[in-house]
Amino acid sequence: MSKRSKLCIIFALSCLASFPLRGEDGYNLWLRYTPVSDKQLLEAYRNSIGGWMIENSSPTADAARRELRMGLDAMLGHPVEEVKTLKYNGIIIAGTFDSPTLSRLDLKSQTKDIGAEGYIIRTMRYADRNITVIAGETERGMLYGVFHFLRLLQTRQPIGQLSIENAPKTRVRILNHWDNLDRTIERGYAGFSLWDWHKLPEYIDPRYYDYARANASVGINGTVLTNVNANALILTPAYLKKVAALADVFRPYGIRVYLTARFSAPIEIGQLKTADPLDPQVQEWWKQKVREIYQYIPDFGGFTVKANSEGQPGPQNYKRNHAEGANMLADALKPFNGIVMWRAFVYDNKVPVDRTKQAYDEFKPLDGKFRSNVMVQVKNGPLDFQPREPFHPLFGAMPSTPLMMEFQITQEYLGQATHLVYLAPLFKEVLDADTYSKGNGSSVGKVLDGSLEEHQLSGMAGVANIGNDRNWCGHPIAQSNWYAFGRLAWDHTLSPEQIAAEWIRMTFNSNPEVVNTITNVMMASREITVKYMTPLGLHHIMGYNHHYGPAPWIKDKPRADWTSVYYHRADEQGLGFNRSSSGSNALEQYQPQIRKIYEEGETCPEEFLLWFHHVSWDEKVRSGRTLWDELCHQYDEGADSVKWMQEQWNSLEGKIDDDRFLHVKTFLHIQQQEAVWWRNACLLYFQTFSKRPIPKDLEKPDQALEHYQAQEFRFAPGIRPRW
Amino acid sequence: MSKRSKLCIIFALSCLASFPLRGEDGYNLWLRYTPVSDKQLLEAYRNSIGGWMIENSSPTADAARRELRMGLDAMLGHPVEEVKTLKYNGIIIAGTFDSPTLSRLDLKSQTKDIGAEGYIIRTMRYADRNITVIAGETERGMLYGVFHFLRLLQTRQPIGQLSIENAPKTRVRILNHWDNLDRTIERGYAGFSLWDWHKLPEYIDPRYYDYARANASVGINGTVLTNVNANALILTPAYLKKVAALADVFRPYGIRVYLTARFSAPIEIGQLKTADPLDPQVQEWWKQKVREIYQYIPDFGGFTVKANSEGQPGPQNYKRNHAEGANMLADALKPFNGIVMWRAFVYDNKVPVDRTKQAYDEFKPLDGKFRSNVMVQVKNGPLDFQPREPFHPLFGAMPSTPLMMEFQITQEYLGQATHLVYLAPLFKEVLDADTYSKGNGSSVGKVLDGSLEEHQLSGMAGVANIGNDRNWCGHPIAQSNWYAFGRLAWDHTLSPEQIAAEWIRMTFNSNPEVVNTITNVMMASREITVKYMTPLGLHHIMGYNHHYGPAPWIKDKPRADWTSVYYHRADEQGLGFNRSSSGSNALEQYQPQIRKIYEEGETCPEEFLLWFHHVSWDEKVRSGRTLWDELCHQYDEGADSVKWMQEQWNSLEGKIDDDRFLHVKTFLHIQQQEAVWWRNACLLYFQTFSKRPIPKDLEKPDQALEHYQAQEFRFAPGIRPRW
Repeated sequence: MSKRSKLCIIFALSCLASFPLRGEDGYNLWLRYTPVSDKQLLEAYRNSIGGWMIENSSPTADAARRELRMGLDAMLGHPVEEVKTLKYNGIIIAGTFDSPTLSRLDLKSQTKDIGAEGYIIRTMRYADRNITVIAGETERGMLYGVFHFLRLLQTRQPIGQLSIENAPKTRVRILNHWDNLDRTIERGYAGFSLWDWHKLPEYIDPRYYDYARANASVGINGTVLTNVNANALILTPAYLKKVAALADVFRPYGIRVYLTARFSAPIEIGQLKTADPLDPQVQEWWKQKVREIYQYIPDFGGFTVKANSEGQPGPQNYKRNHAEGANMLADALKPFNGIVMWRAFVYDNKVPVDRTKQAYDEFKPLDGKFRSNVMVQVKNGPLDFQPREPFHPLFGAMPSTPLMMEFQITQEYLGQATHLVYLAPLFKEVLDADTYSKGNGSSVGKVLDGSLEEHQLSGMAGVANIGNDRNWCGHPIAQSNWYAFGRLAWDHTLSPEQIAAEWIRMTFNSNPEVVNTITNVMMASREITVKYMTPLGLHHIMGYNHHYGPAPWIKDKPRADWTSVYYHRADEQGLGFNRSSSGSNALEQYQPQIRKIYEEGETCPEEFLLWFHHVSWDEKVRSGRTLWDELCHQYDEGADSVKWMQEQWNSLEGKIDDDRFLHVKTFLHIQQQEAVWWRNACLLYFQTFSKRPIPKDLEKPDQALEHYQAQEFRFAPGIRPRW
Repeated sequence: MSKRSKLCIIFALSCLASFPLRGEDGYNLWLRYTPVSDKQLLEAYRNSIGGWMIENSSPTADAARRELRMGLDAMLGHPVEEVKTLKYNGIIIAGTFDSPTLSRLDLKSQTKDIGAEGYIIRTMRYADRNITVIAGETERGMLYGVFHFLRLLQTRQPIGQLSIENAPKTRVRILNHWDNLDRTIERGYAGFSLWDWHKLPEYIDPRYYDYARANASVGINGTVLTNVNANALILTPAYLKKVAALADVFRPYGIRVYLTARFSAPIEIGQLKTADPLDPQVQEWWKQKVREIYQYIPDFGGFTVKANSEGQPGPQNYKRNHAEGANMLADALKPFNGIVMWRAFVYDNKVPVDRTKQAYDEFKPLDGKFRSNVMVQVKNGPLDFQPREPFHPLFGAMPSTPLMMEFQITQEYLGQATHLVYLAPLFKEVLDADTYSKGNGSSVGKVLDGSLEEHQLSGMAGVANIGNDRNWCGHPIAQSNWYAFGRLAWDHTLSPEQIAAEWIRMTFNSNPEVVNTITNVMMASREITVKYMTPLGLHHIMGYNHHYGPAPWIKDKPRADWTSVYYHRADEQGLGFNRSSSGSNALEQYQPQIRKIYEEGETCPEEFLLWFHHVSWDEKVRSGRTLWDELCHQYDEGADSVKWMQEQWNSLEGKIDDDRFLHVKTFLHIQQQEAVWWRNACLLYFQTFSKRPIPKDLEKPDQALEHYQAQEFRFAPGIRPRW
């Protein structure tokens, strides 16, 4: 090649990489398909991949075809031939077990049951050729296999001798969008809703396809488009047409759409006088409505319902219980194989002695009363997505009912738009927690995936952190939480480290220094956040309504359990919520193995100390310090550790693209400031009870408590809608 | 070059153009700097441009440097050398008249007064070299010159012999963002606000730079960041820090920031009991507040004020007039060279006989009463940005006061998100209208630019159509309205055709078929829209509150002048608002030359017939048809012409990029459906008065009137905020 033409190529490539209006803005997520730069590896890949073929023909096969072409061409740096026959070595052949060529390989008999969504990836010799087979029972399985195969290349793994069998552990792997019809998002910190309802169904934003691709690439197979604080209008024909248009985009990627059902819809859009689930007219209205929905969306997934919670209507308005409400909808959906995901996040109008007990108290008695197409959707902890909570006591407590996990991917309580917090360790902590419901090893993960109690239906929901920000999730690293949710929903036994490392390789690059540094920061981030926000089991001490920043002083609100003082119970004696048998006895909702350890402050794991106990300021904790001193130390350590995160990140300059380097650097600066804010505001406030000095060796707050209490954030993002 | 390396280049370039996650999404606006493909022209450009130099050093010079490098490298297809001396022929040298090399050329004496923002572009011979000089008195002038020079290349013009002198005709060329602090945009149809207030001042979205570049490239030199329905919080320190961060980004591009001042701010954030402009405490509060603002933003531009209009507070709350209100703010701003843009869009709480008369009635008596740093900002027409209005009678009626134009770029009344309507013909129609205030040739443009009445201060404001949609303006063609506004604000004598053609060349390509076809569609689009929405001078018959779609039946609202029936006055006799001397006599606000023609239906220009006259259904109009038949024909022709627009657009397939081709095609489909909706809904409604049949040869509505009246759009975008 001439020098000039080399220069031209370099120039063309540098345009690709650095044309200023098109920086690395994060739009491509983990599907960047960057060219392989390691020459040896590139050579190996080119040897293994001479061409590719997919014999199936369908929208899903087309999706696999597009993805394979895009990924291979870009990563191998030249157009890889799509072939019709195995004309040379190194053909990638993707398809279903029964597609023409693959059927001759008799793959089915050599494969364990991988179900409708599983796949195999296998290097083989056939008809005197070396080939790589990507195959599933169904085209959805094949598509997942294609994404897996591409991930191997994206993470620069060897592909010479592959023998992979993979199938999801849970059946419904689903995002919950708390998106309103006006495009605001409750608890959304990445801009506004992707769903441009007004222009649907005519205008299909190309971004909807990329949303589907990203989800399919991590195994997510469902999406609830609307807020659990629901609006019945979504069930009217004008909106169902719009929903159908989205469903058409998502279908080839194996993704079903679901909607939130407002329980009072029969009144609001059906002109009935009641929404009583035992009223035949109401039942008939829902049956008719569901039939109508399936006319628009033949593979509609079903409903998510928030009932009798935070002002939402529900069966209790008619003195019916949750099972009676859920079953009415389930009966309407049953003929179409639709399901109901009925949320257990409830609390009634009377402020309870201990709100964390309510879901268990209401739902446990209903075990066995739900239809077979109902799952009860339970948040990871008994309160509300706090930086740390013990696992929800319902897990393991309703053996006759499939329970679904609800994780929150959007960082409502974990720094919102700007804090780097990798959530996989939080998710994993709960998934691995032992409920002891059937003795040792009865982990939450096994409850969820149905294996513990032999349920067919199983699922995991994640409250999405996706908005119309160019990079989808606002914080460049928040993309990893979407990714990790999908990967863990597919297989809850994966490790957070492994997920982080593969995400980093695909999203940034495979330079070991980059991978190690970012992995370390991500893996430490959640624990650091707990320390500067809610150490030692503290919870629910954030700003009122918008939940932004610290506000342990919140009191005198419409409900006591919407305040901070209800939860931290600080007084002159000490700090913490006594949930042991001498207190609210929320502990009784757990198995004896847990109760035994948690009942006493001395044996209770320190990270849950103030969750379960009111501890006096001078009591010695594990470190040998008094509670007050330990609290100060943990807040300080949390805030200080953000500086360490900053140092680590700064070491990446020049090793990743400038755009995202700077973006995260700026956000870490905000996080550092806000961590100090949390530390100062909380310690100054708790000090008004403890009356003890902040230990000498720690940094002192540079503002008075009143300064922090005077902060107002009228336009903080993600505020709950008023309708 | 080898075949393989050629292929590689083609592949790299095709990645650039078509990597599927990075389609032509419109983000780059008219600053795409696509490579010159015509070989002869490329050769000519390369001969004229060997290298470039800028000797000035400052943030503005750096901005010019970045732009020149980016534009030249991309368009000429190779890195163009930045040089330090005139070492060979074909150096582009940009700078100020007093920069080291340029000062030796004695350009100043050879140039007429081009002011602080003007520039020259001249090919010259100097020191035995052929050079191209881009120079201004100031670096802002230089930057405008650089953008002009790049535009010549972008539009593929010859650059061999340039002799250009250019200076803006108006001083303040400014966007008005009706953006709220929660990021909703009143009358915004391109997503949500660009200003991510919550993350400012720390996080600077790279998009802020591109916003500044785009504005500077068309000569816009100011931006009002906040909604005229104002929130006083923007004037508090927490927000002023955020505003300052934006001002820092915009400053190098010659763009000043302005804010909307809520008249009651002294009460709301200043803890005063009154906002009476004659109260010394209030005056002092504003002086102090303005001093504070200038500490944050040393080149702060000033305030835009909507007072005593649509519920906004103002001086009339204290029985003071608009001049007294404006002057109080002007006095506070004067020491810092800030200005007040006081809107004339007012109407008081009593519903007037004719709302179109009110601004004139209130403001004309105040002529001469305003401080020298006040401009009165007048909408193009006397009502409110309708598809067609006569020019506002205040133009020419306040000779002692600089009047500023307020155009609406966002398409509140012209199809909102999805209708292709090129607004330059609308703008131009008003700019060219003769007010006769100083005899023939006293055009609105001359009133505005200060030349008619010798004002120093002059300005043009455009209500922005910009949101966080990836392509900025929602509709790909709506970008042209931002562009055209800027170009006309700079020079109101430019022709809409010329502006369209240069925009198309830069935004799509220079293929004559493409340029001609899109120009034709754009040039026809506004007239077509008038026909299917409000032909023959009809106005204000759109949906209530959201203003989406037709609703001539709106009546019985809190104010009569918020209804449709108030404006169209349809009855059994006929249709239209009699504003002649036998009616409201709004005509008396115009000069005799206009009154004479408009007073009688026979001589009144047909496009304003029903604006000024109540005409009986059977009266013959210019075409020889009765009013009713003509109305039917015009509605039909409007709706039918959208099909012509579709055909024209469809002929572009393959001649422009697929992404935008499809995007516009989809929107034209929506426009066509909605044009039919307008025609049917309006004709069916007016038919209830006319009792006459729709002419036989015209398409009949396929729905009953009740169908259209039943449409509800609770979540239409751009609804006015409730606070």
